[in-house]
Amino acid sequence: MNRTLGVCYYPEHWPETQWASDAARMVAAGLTWVRIGEFAWQRIEPAPGTFDWDWLDRAVAVLGDAGLKVVMGTPTATPPRWLVDQMPDMIAVDAQGRPRKFGSRRHYDFSYLPYRDACRRIARLMGERYGRNPHVAAWQIDNEYDCHDTCLSYSDAARAGFQDWLAQKYQSTDALNRAWGNVFWSMDYDSFDQIDLPNLTVTEPNPSHVLDFRRYSSDQVVAFNRVQVDVLRDLTDTPLIHNYMGRTLTFDHYAVGADLDIASWDSYPIGFLSDRIEGTEAEKQAFLRQGHPDNQAFHHDLYRAVGKGRLWVMEQQPGPVNWAPYNPAPLPGMVRLWSWEAFAHGAEAVCYFRWRQAPFAQEQMHAGLLRPDDAEAPGLAEARQVADELAQLPDVSAGTAPVALVFDYESAWAWDAQPQGADFEMFRLAFAAYRGLRKLGLSIDILPPDCADLSAYKLVLAPGLLTLSDNLRDALARFTGVALIGPRTDVKTPDLTIPNPMGPNLPGTDVTVTLTESIPPSDAIALEGGGAFRHWFEALDGTATVHHRTADGRPAIMGGDHLRYLAGWPSDETFVDILRTTCAEVGVATQDMPGGLRLRETPEATFAFNYGADPVDWNGQTIPAAGVAWVKR
Amino acid sequence: MNRTLGVCYYPEHWPETQWASDAARMVAAGLTWVRIGEFAWQRIEPAPGTFDWDWLDRAVAVLGDAGLKVVMGTPTATPPRWLVDQMPDMIAVDAQGRPRKFGSRRHYDFSYLPYRDACRRIARLMGERYGRNPHVAAWQIDNEYDCHDTCLSYSDAARAGFQDWLAQKYQSTDALNRAWGNVFWSMDYDSFDQIDLPNLTVTEPNPSHVLDFRRYSSDQVVAFNRVQVDVLRDLTDTPLIHNYMGRTLTFDHYAVGADLDIASWDSYPIGFLSDRIEGTEAEKQAFLRQGHPDNQAFHHDLYRAVGKGRLWVMEQQPGPVNWAPYNPAPLPGMVRLWSWEAFAHGAEAVCYFRWRQAPFAQEQMHAGLLRPDDAEAPGLAEARQVADELAQLPDVSAGTAPVALVFDYESAWAWDAQPQGADFEMFRLAFAAYRGLRKLGLSIDILPPDCADLSAYKLVLAPGLLTLSDNLRDALARFTGVALIGPRTDVKTPDLTIPNPMGPNLPGTDVTVTLTESIPPSDAIALEGGGAFRHWFEALDGTATVHHRTADGRPAIMGGDHLRYLAGWPSDETFVDILRTTCAEVGVATQDMPGGLRLRETPEATFAFNYGADPVDWNGQTIPAAGVAWVKR
Amino acid sequence: MNRTLGVCYYPEHWPETQWASDAARMVAAGLTWVRIGEFAWQRIEPAPGTFDWDWLDRAVAVLGDAGLKVVMGTPTATPPRWLVDQMPDMIAVDAQGRPRKFGSRRHYDFSYLPYRDACRRIARLMGERYGRNPHVAAWQIDNEYDCHDTCLSYSDAARAGFQDWLAQKYQSTDALNRAWGNVFWSMDYDSFDQIDLPNLTVTEPNPSHVLDFRRYSSDQVVAFNRVQVDVLRDLTDTPLIHNYMGRTLTFDHYAVGADLDIASWDSYPIGFLSDRIEGTEAEKQAFLRQGHPDNQAFHHDLYRAVGKGRLWVMEQQPGPVNWAPYNPAPLPGMVRLWSWEAFAHGAEAVCYFRWRQAPFAQEQMHAGLLRPDDAEAPGLAEARQVADELAQLPDVSAGTAPVALVFDYESAWAWDAQPQGADFEMFRLAFAAYRGLRKLGLSIDILPPDCADLSAYKLVLAPGLLTLSDNLRDALARFTGVALIGPRTDVKTPDLTIPNPMGPNLPGTDVTVTLTESIPPSDAIALEGGGAFRHWFEALDGTATVHHRTADGRPAIMGGDHLRYLAGWPSDETFVDILRTTCAEVGVATQDMPGGLRLRETPEATFAFNYGADPVDWNGQTIPAAGVAWVKR
Repeated sequence: MNRTLGVCYYPEHWPETQWASDAARMVAAGLTWVRIGEFAWQRIEPAPGTFDWDWLDRAVAVLGDAGLKVVMGTPTATPPRWLVDQMPDMIAVDAQGRPRKFGSRRHYDFSYLPYRDACRRIARLMGERYGRNPHVAAWQIDNEYDCHDTCLSYSDAARAGFQDWLAQKYQSTDALNRAWGNVFWSMDYDSFDQIDLPNLTVTEPNPSHVLDFRRYSSDQVVAFNRVQVDVLRDLTDTPLIHNYMGRTLTFDHYAVGADLDIASWDSYPIGFLSDRIEGTEAEKQAFLRQGHPDNQAFHHDLYRAVGKGRLWVMEQQPGPVNWAPYNPAPLPGMVRLWSWEAFAHGAEAVCYFRWRQAPFAQEQMHAGLLRPDDAEAPGLAEARQVADELAQLPDVSAGTAPVALVFDYESAWAWDAQPQGADFEMFRLAFAAYRGLRKLGLSIDILPPDCADLSAYKLVLAPGLLTLSDNLRDALARFTGVALIGPRTDVKTPDLTIPNPMGPNLPGTDVTVTLTESIPPSDAIALEGGGAFRHWFEALDGTATVHHRTADGRPAIMGGDHLRYLAGWPSDETFVDILRTTCAEVGVATQDMPGGLRLRETPEATFAFNYGADPVDWNGQTIPAAGVAWVKR
Repeated sequence: MNRTLGVCYYPEHWPETQWASDAARMVAAGLTWVRIGEFAWQRIEPAPGTFDWDWLDRAVAVLGDAGLKVVMGTPTATPPRWLVDQMPDMIAVDAQGRPRKFGSRRHYDFSYLPYRDACRRIARLMGERYGRNPHVAAWQIDNEYDCHDTCLSYSDAARAGFQDWLAQKYQSTDALNRAWGNVFWSMDYDSFDQIDLPNLTVTEPNPSHVLDFRRYSSDQVVAFNRVQVDVLRDLTDTPLIHNYMGRTLTFDHYAVGADLDIASWDSYPIGFLSDRIEGTEAEKQAFLRQGHPDNQAFHHDLYRAVGKGRLWVMEQQPGPVNWAPYNPAPLPGMVRLWSWEAFAHGAEAVCYFRWRQAPFAQEQMHAGLLRPDDAEAPGLAEARQVADELAQLPDVSAGTAPVALVFDYESAWAWDAQPQGADFEMFRLAFAAYRGLRKLGLSIDILPPDCADLSAYKLVLAPGLLTLSDNLRDALARFTGVALIGPRTDVKTPDLTIPNPMGPNLPGTDVTVTLTESIPPSDAIALEGGGAFRHWFEALDGTATVHHRTADGRPAIMGGDHLRYLAGWPSDETFVDILRTTCAEVGVATQDMPGGLRLRETPEATFAFNYGADPVDWNGQTIPAAGVAWVKR
Repeated sequence: MNRTLGVCYYPEHWPETQWASDAARMVAAGLTWVRIGEFAWQRIEPAPGTFDWDWLDRAVAVLGDAGLKVVMGTPTATPPRWLVDQMPDMIAVDAQGRPRKFGSRRHYDFSYLPYRDACRRIARLMGERYGRNPHVAAWQIDNEYDCHDTCLSYSDAARAGFQDWLAQKYQSTDALNRAWGNVFWSMDYDSFDQIDLPNLTVTEPNPSHVLDFRRYSSDQVVAFNRVQVDVLRDLTDTPLIHNYMGRTLTFDHYAVGADLDIASWDSYPIGFLSDRIEGTEAEKQAFLRQGHPDNQAFHHDLYRAVGKGRLWVMEQQPGPVNWAPYNPAPLPGMVRLWSWEAFAHGAEAVCYFRWRQAPFAQEQMHAGLLRPDDAEAPGLAEARQVADELAQLPDVSAGTAPVALVFDYESAWAWDAQPQGADFEMFRLAFAAYRGLRKLGLSIDILPPDCADLSAYKLVLAPGLLTLSDNLRDALARFTGVALIGPRTDVKTPDLTIPNPMGPNLPGTDVTVTLTESIPPSDAIALEGGGAFRHWFEALDGTATVHHRTADGRPAIMGGDHLRYLAGWPSDETFVDILRTTCAEVGVATQDMPGGLRLRETPEATFAFNYGADPVDWNGQTIPAAGVAWVKR
């Protein structure tokens, strides 16, 4: 497959006289794609029913004529002020009951159906106009669902929608009361319209109530997206894409992705480092101008799964951004490194955000490939270098990794609703497992929770799953490698209650979690032979083999030859040790990664990325700071 | 008196077929009491005026027939949804003006009178049905007043009630304006209906305004409780009890207790450790699976006073809970230790919460004596051991301690309204004094602020009292031991203003606080001969003897032979030193407690409790970690 | 000029029988001024239209007859309850949409025009009655604008006023949309009444939107103040004063000051130390009972500029206060030190707050010169000592310093709206520069951003200015000393967008900021020869000379002989080093200050203030802790 570069561009921000030279410079820099349109509703429809397509027609023509392929964005993340005036109830409401007002973006409520109609209409009009335009080669729907925490709304529309969703799911309040255990505190309902949203309760609401609200809210995102998919499918043959925001777990990306052709995500390695990704303070200092060395890889692997194999980076950080607590500049070389890493993980295209730094509004301090005065910014030379290298390198494909990690959104909602320990968070646990694997130089595939085939893998991890799906349970029953299940996996029913018999229900091996402890950061549970569990520990019972014990003799890993339950959350070092041992057992070669070095195996080559600020030796060569190396296989 | 064990049970959570075996297993475990009913309003009255008593009749019969005594709870902490629909204004409002909605528990406003009527009605109906039932041997009214910060509400009902309360107290706004000093910022009122609740003011409200609102709010809890007391008194001859929540100071427990027969409290030693009790980080780590070694004792001693000598533990933690930031499991032995400690402090009964872990809703991760699948949880064996030991041991009574600590709720409200130092908090100060005494191996009686007789004691502490009551002042005048008054005692009027002449007004000795300093944690005031005051220091003047000085020569303890004022808040170590010296002076023997060892003297025996994680030697024997020992006197 | 002392007094708080002795004691203590009236609206007008002037007439007479000069305060910071009942919409609304209720003070909205009318009326009535009273020698208008964050309100009145203000400024929404760059996220407006206040937006609002709202809000304070100025100008010939609160940047003090005759401020050195002034933890501990050694000087120098040379301290802390997180007592001597420091910086009068500690309401724990029981508090003796010393010392005037610091309010709003780095704050940056100068023993003049003449200075600093005014740019073009501009100066347009060509636009030298980094506290940018930039770094380009480089060779200071741009925020130590070198270059003598020693040069004498807790040697003498020394020139 042909790997390509692109850029995000806002012709409406610049004089039309500048468009042609911009396009020519993009092409000269080796860029293939240009994304436009996704915030331009007001310029397209400046007043209700009054359209100004001309400028956009000309922009598409200028860009296309220069040889660029256009990704056309639907502008539904930024409804114009006049639309808010028409339907003031489209505004979402936060958990404290406050309206989330016009004045920035994403000021809409996923539950508010008239706004969905308005989105259907604008998407249809755009599809009708550009769906068969030869320069428009892909579509992006909306922009960064849930960005700024916009998935959950506590509006009247959300309450009404939730009540209807519950009625459809449970059919009777008796069934709902039983499923949620509402007998507990006399919380039973007599009719669905008594059921409020689970905010502002005196103390925590019933976790089953919360989990259903989270499912409902995710379903609204899926439905919202589908409205535009449905209308565009008939109007274009090009792929439909959404650009997800990393570290976002409020809706089921797999479910949204099922309706789309490609999953893309917006990669801001430095923007995410300080407060949106797990990591020690030492890591955050060591990788201040590089980003966490596992964050990008994790999301590439995740969105490759969400995209059913098709992955893009729709927005790639090209310099300092404006929105993190602190915004340092990337180390020279990192823009190239991030780009190559994306390709090594299977990305078909990497688009930089943005072409030219805007001189106004919220993101005026967000770097582009050009400065606001049109001079080149540092990122452009690195983009050009990647383009040159791409032309020289044979193809790169994703292939299949030896190790898989099952990752689930619904479980994230469940543990949000019932953390039990203040630092228990689904992403944190999954990322801890992922980091452990990466520190051993491994490549990983991320799998959805209902995957039915594990036969390609030698090692499978499944931490923190609310339940095991029937598909996954069957696949595990047939699995011939080693699957390390847990901690906190399959110990609940789908209603977020405790099953009887108690879980997990692992095929072919007898293990039961009998008691759970959450552990403050000051404490740990020592393991036999060294190492420790932190954060979480489950007492295990059953007749299965104990493969590893705590220092005081309790089961730490227990199960059969192929299917084993991990009783706690290993410390970072212990996770690496456990995974190294298990890999050796199943014949997966590992190598300990020094500092910021990370590897990625593809069918064509092994790539090495040095996230560190110092050179590192690898495979007979020295990789400089922020450097990339590859060895063909 | 016969010391007994019991358990909290929810027959409505389980199939009726299971009740008889549950009851038999309770009896076999040595349990005497079973508390039921306190969250079951919706099951008793599933629709307005429609009652289903049958299941409860049968539950009482099954339990009673098995030989258990029932504590019947009134279900007023969990009003059903239909009642909220009938009276939506029963919902409380938080200090930010947000409603505190249905969906958990305690969703009622103490000021809302129609809800009091509804509670009177359901309590009467329950009393009529079970008040003379031979199996029902005690009543619990409501559940954990103020839990989830539910005492204070900023609703319209609260404002109207407060205005009426003020009108009754002051009779004229002139009197109120004078009492509060409203001239200060032109805050005078012309009529009572101008007086708002003291929330959302531009900067802090008048502390006298706040204190009166706190008094009003406490009075509503007393009145709310009395409604049910009044109706049940005629319908039953068994004791009436409330189960207080520890570390709760928003209402006057003595005043509520005055209407009841027994004070009980809900003891969650580990649940409280991390963020609900004062203690150093080192203590919190050392006692992570044991609870703070002085917390339980403090509350036993406090509620023994609230219960006028009659004390129960209505809920005893039996394993990990679900609601603390982190929820580790108790060290083996702690369930037994906590139980014995309660008895040593005078508890008549200790009831474990709960019989079987619920598989659903908010507390599904809260351990019981049984697991959700009916297997035994670790706590059951320890409960059974206590039952066996109780059968062997002669009686245990509380007796009278040599040392007393005066503890007052109203003062806590006053210092909340006017902390002056960010870390000045009434409980913290009182608990610091209590911990100092306990580290010397002492047993303590806690006394209410209007106690009139101190003749049984050799040492009395009275820190942080807003004023000295007439009773207490008279008792102090007659006292022949040493009373250590202060810091911050009797330096205000009951209106929370500064008296003239300035306080304290100590009988027979001339000491005046002339200037007050609050001190940040980074600083301290050194004392002559070592040690330091922290947090708080008062400059003293007067003709009394200076018993102890600061390093720079200012009075640190000043007063007469029997009545002395403590000018500051001693550091933990200094408090122990001061108390050791004073005890020696008055002939109270002390012994420094190593690590987690704590003692309790009763007329029959001296008990030793090892809260530490290592064995400790005491009195010629080695007490293991989490161990209990006793020596008969 | 005659330097005088005074005191704040509330006759309405005390029995009239006490007034005469109070007045006599004030005079005996050497006090000249007595400020009264500023919170007494309710006593003056107890009911709408019903006035009680008699008590105030008598108070003025008693005080004046004793020989005191009265500062009469207008009472508009504390409107009575009846006025709030008349106009409930006068209440401000916070950024969360909550009303800021009656019950303390400053409960009014600057945008609410009927309240301005009410203030005009009460000010006129007071002016008519006391404007020509021979005892009334000055007027204070309102009290501490913005105290308790009261400048910004998000009320309906504010929204309407803001819309009108925008309409006047931009004339068309097209112009506004262009100025703000509303095309960015389809944020364009079609009419001014669509423009909401910039709170509660989904993510951050357009910074240009915020900046205009901040300008609007500042303008309301100016207009509010001018209403009373206008009415009093005709009624009195005495000076009109406002007492500003330190560390307050929400409105343009220069603009308010332009309408007044004298700028006064309220100096609470210890109250400000812990959380209202920048400083290291070590400094805060070292100066716990002294206040930050540069805070008072900064504000004296700032308000001398605001007052166009005329400065008072209207409230001087005399002992512990009540409103800081912790409230320790001043070190003996500090009340005298603070007073003398004010005079050395040009204050004409220093008034202590307050005469006698109030026994009631919010500030009952705030010390006065007398205790609540009328005994002398420690501050009185120090005030008396200052009075005696003043009588002996020849005149003290402010003179002109060799170094100037340009300080701007509008820039503070701009960086609040667009911090880019979490710790970038205008005051913090300016204060860092000021501290650096003070550690070299220098005296400083603070200049407004539109100053047109720098010829008196050898060194000028201008950090963090949104833009350079035409006046300042012209003055810099003519400047013959060294001006150190930046960091973050003149890199934006007045609309808070990025200019093209990019800034700064420095006359006669070619420097451009091409890229900006904000830097977390864990990191720094090392400089050649040692030292570092922290928080902020700007990449510079251009043809100007590089005077100083980073360790990796990038420009750190760049420009011409006289006008240079500072590329980053120097660490405290580095700031001192840079300033020492630059001072040497321009012939300003410096001396490194040990510990808490600070100097102030006046035309008549050099003053030395020892803020330290230990004695310090200076100029051949030993200055004790909290000591003051001076050498006549």
